[in-house]
Amino acid sequence: MLPKVGDKASLSRSISPEEIGQFAAVSGDFNPVHVDEEFAGKTRFGGRIAHGMWSASLISAVLGTKLPGPGTIYLSQTLAFKAPVRPGETITATVKVTKVREDKRIVTLHTYCENAEGQRIVDGEAVVLHEEVV
Amino acid sequence: MLPKVGDKASLSRSISPEEIGQFAAVSGDFNPVHVDEEFAGKTRFGGRIAHGMWSASLISAVLGTKLPGPGTIYLSQTLAFKAPVRPGETITATVKVTKVREDKRIVTLHTYCENAEGQRIVDGEAVVLHEEVV
Repeated sequence: MLPKVGDKASLSRSISPEEIGQFAAVSGDFNPVHVDEEFAGKTRFGGRIAHGMWSASLISAVLGTKLPGPGTIYLSQTLAFKAPVRPGETITATVKVTKVREDKRIVTLHTYCENAEGQRIVDGEAVVLHEEVV
Repeated sequence: MLPKVGDKASLSRSISPEEIGQFAAVSGDFNPVHVDEEFAGKTRFGGRIAHGMWSASLISAVLGTKLPGPGTIYLSQTLAFKAPVRPGETITATVKVTKVREDKRIVTLHTYCENAEGQRIVDGEAVVLHEEVV
């Protein structure tokens, strides 16, 4: 079933230093700000931070498992990275339906991630197709 | 050092079915089109596909390790998902500098991923800040 404008879903998750290493291994993204404590300590962040695409993947997780849920196919995503995620932080990804095109089964959603203090980490928009799988 | 307009870098990588499972585990994105062969077989793809954010993370990998390289901080990324990635496929992510704002050290890049046949998988634009870490 297609969602309605205003429908909303969330998912919370934290990332450990080990999981940052796993994300680097599976993506090949060994940017030292993520995996090298000494290098990261000299940046504006003063220590390692999680990959921005990890936060983005939480948005994908909500879309693909909750709203619209299984059968969701990504068409596009915009991502504005607002603040860093540090190891151990819990991030909540939220998606909220802003537009539904029933004939094409295309859904547009406002998508964002926040930390436990409610600070915006990532902000953007997703457009997805929802295929009915029977 | 800041890159110049026209500078270009790439990275190629493949993803195994096991790595799709690892990406799901670290992101919480258990969308069945990625992890459930039976469900995925009934979709338009006819089988499991990799997460779109995995391809996106290859773009992040090129930015953070090659161009502009270590010291890169993500400001934004747009992603248009054009075609699926199947287990075992080799994907090449390419970034090409389109604009450099020297005073703010902000670099804009055309970013895209292609499969071995040269088919565009993901297309978009990245804006990054390059911090000089000494």
